[in-house]
Amino acid sequence: MNIIDIIEKKRDKMELSKEEIEYFINKYTNDEIKDYQASALVMAIFLNGMTEKETTDLTLAMANSGEVLDLSALNGIIVDKHSTGGVGDKVSIILLPLVSSLGVKVAKMSGRGLGFTGGTVDKLQSIPGYKTEIEMEQFIKNVEQIGISMISQTLNLAPADKKLYALRDSISCVESIPLIASSIMSKKIASGADKIVLDVTVGKGAFMQDIENARKLADMMIKIGRLANKQTTCILTNMNEPLGYSIGNSLEIIEAVQFLKGNMSEDLKQVVLKLGSYMIKLAGLGNNLEENENKMIENIKNGKAYEKFKQLVEKQGGNIAYIDKIENMRKANFIEPVYSINRGYIQEIDSKEIGKLASYLGAGRETKEDKIEHEVGIVLNKKVADKVEVNDILAYIHANSEEKLNCAKKRLLEIIKTSLEPIQKEQIILEIINGD
Amino acid sequence: MNIIDIIEKKRDKMELSKEEIEYFINKYTNDEIKDYQASALVMAIFLNGMTEKETTDLTLAMANSGEVLDLSALNGIIVDKHSTGGVGDKVSIILLPLVSSLGVKVAKMSGRGLGFTGGTVDKLQSIPGYKTEIEMEQFIKNVEQIGISMISQTLNLAPADKKLYALRDSISCVESIPLIASSIMSKKIASGADKIVLDVTVGKGAFMQDIENARKLADMMIKIGRLANKQTTCILTNMNEPLGYSIGNSLEIIEAVQFLKGNMSEDLKQVVLKLGSYMIKLAGLGNNLEENENKMIENIKNGKAYEKFKQLVEKQGGNIAYIDKIENMRKANFIEPVYSINRGYIQEIDSKEIGKLASYLGAGRETKEDKIEHEVGIVLNKKVADKVEVNDILAYIHANSEEKLNCAKKRLLEIIKTSLEPIQKEQIILEIINGD
Repeated sequence: MNIIDIIEKKRDKMELSKEEIEYFINKYTNDEIKDYQASALVMAIFLNGMTEKETTDLTLAMANSGEVLDLSALNGIIVDKHSTGGVGDKVSIILLPLVSSLGVKVAKMSGRGLGFTGGTVDKLQSIPGYKTEIEMEQFIKNVEQIGISMISQTLNLAPADKKLYALRDSISCVESIPLIASSIMSKKIASGADKIVLDVTVGKGAFMQDIENARKLADMMIKIGRLANKQTTCILTNMNEPLGYSIGNSLEIIEAVQFLKGNMSEDLKQVVLKLGSYMIKLAGLGNNLEENENKMIENIKNGKAYEKFKQLVEKQGGNIAYIDKIENMRKANFIEPVYSINRGYIQEIDSKEIGKLASYLGAGRETKEDKIEHEVGIVLNKKVADKVEVNDILAYIHANSEEKLNCAKKRLLEIIKTSLEPIQKEQIILEIINGD
Repeated sequence: MNIIDIIEKKRDKMELSKEEIEYFINKYTNDEIKDYQASALVMAIFLNGMTEKETTDLTLAMANSGEVLDLSALNGIIVDKHSTGGVGDKVSIILLPLVSSLGVKVAKMSGRGLGFTGGTVDKLQSIPGYKTEIEMEQFIKNVEQIGISMISQTLNLAPADKKLYALRDSISCVESIPLIASSIMSKKIASGADKIVLDVTVGKGAFMQDIENARKLADMMIKIGRLANKQTTCILTNMNEPLGYSIGNSLEIIEAVQFLKGNMSEDLKQVVLKLGSYMIKLAGLGNNLEENENKMIENIKNGKAYEKFKQLVEKQGGNIAYIDKIENMRKANFIEPVYSINRGYIQEIDSKEIGKLASYLGAGRETKEDKIEHEVGIVLNKKVADKVEVNDILAYIHANSEEKLNCAKKRLLEIIKTSLEPIQKEQIILEIINGD
């Protein structure tokens, strides 16, 4: 077996065998296959596609290229939750303590944000003291003791995926369904999940721009899950405008805390409840989805979800004084409103552009080494379809420099588009695709 | 401009601009673009193709990536001849002295052989004393003085093509018409030719396995020639069986000398005369192709072509005693016949397999560093369609070790296939495609 023949086979649209895919992944992980050969193969995969079987074999080979977390000591069905990426996406921070308060065991490892979407780990780190890097033993102990732990990916999980992802990024081969599906699923499998709920975002601020491609990605991941014996449910959600009101790390923590205290924005609520009802079901704790949603609402109202979140923060070393008095969280140097210059209805708040603007303010990073400014970002005051008058506040900019503040104010007025005609609010939950 | 966007454009089947192609070639030549990015672009070109304009821009960018030979001092139309590669292909060694004897100026730089096809330079080097590496000044002086010089490519001609070719070879992206066409034409343009005659080989021992693809390649090269102002004629020739009788470096020199002395095998004669008649025409020395062929036959009969060859060898430092007494050329340790075990007619002598066998005997090289054994190879005694009886001699093996001798004898019996039914001799000149 050699890589030149493997490249030729894929170049000629033939199906690669399990052995060929394992050969490639193992040798590439060990640097025995050169980047320029992997690169040719990746472009051939991008252009000629992969069958379900090939994609599953690739997923498993990548999952097995490094450590595979064993969570069997936890004695329960571990349901992992993952989002394909969005702007203002604080779902994990709300949802996981919430389902944990209902008995779902949560052992969650998240990535850092790269590009215009922030990462859950970055958001958690804006809570003073919160340790995202702890020993595996402690991680499992935390889940045993309080039912939940949320940390960053410290293990060497799916190193082949890391290498391939960086390569894809440098050769314009990111947006490929088999490559995205195998990348996501390999990490989920390596992190020890038994079952998986996936939030497949669709729209301007997502990987997938349209519902057809999102559906294809979801189908592919469900099939991989089935072949890998990891039951998977995909929930397709709308990512044309940011989710909720806040974009920026500590700003999103604040919104998450408010949510857990009962102050729920409509779109965020729908996503949290839908994902949660399936997590509870997959965990074997309730087959009636509507009942599951009601139980979640109840645990928000009675404060149990919020208590679970505080317990999590405390266990991870975080200072809960900041949670209880969320207004004490560190603030940006400048917080200023942006006023509408038009009247009418909000027509569009392009989430990709909002994400890029937040990143410009310092909330995101371009390269892995960049430092994040946790306190900066944008807090929307209006959402799509809202009525607006001249001089109404559209949003608040949280910036650390006057220059960035002023640029961001100008830019925001370009991004938020208004219409004189009323605008129909878009659906937030687009489709549910179930694997079994 | 950046390489990621260029890759994305070609990935999405869009046409690259001249500036984008030049950017890629210049930065890649200077190692500013990484191999893994070039590799992705090459695979995208392989799979999505290139327009005529793109291919011409690529050709010119590669031609200009290094030195460009200026032959204007020679005061005449320089017609270059190139073959896309064959087995037993000693055409240049015969043809160039022959047309030179008729006044066509020949300033020829050839490559070394790689893989199963031998190179003209390797063949010339089997003549004791023949120097293929001489200074450019001397090269031009030789052409001025005797009308011909044949050397190896010593200049830094089209370095981008060298780099890209090596890359293509390691990622299964050799057989692409725009990439082959631009590779050939860039070297021809850089080596200072005014007009070009191309022998486009077709069949088992050639780049192009079928006439349709060979025609496409020829069309592409003619169009590049037209856009680059280098009139080009392509002659499609059959390469299913080896050309002539000998395969191996000094063995082919021997056959070339015999040819120039009037002992011409039919297929070789047809190729030499056809290519030559167009070279004479393009050089402006005769528009009547039939007359040109007759003049060539005449110069073989009257010894002028052979004299020109001897003059060339002498000028290049070669010992013409070996040419005059060709039987004095160094011989292999073992020269043994292979006898037919069947009767009937020769059905097939797969030239690729014969080339690989000659290479196994030591006549070719796998890597650039490999040493060639000039004296080894195969001399056929039968060609396709010939009648054969049991125990007739099919061929002679020239080997330097008994082990290789015996392996080669066995293998040859597998390669040369016989049929009980008479076999129709295939056409050798398949098609002529003229540019103007």
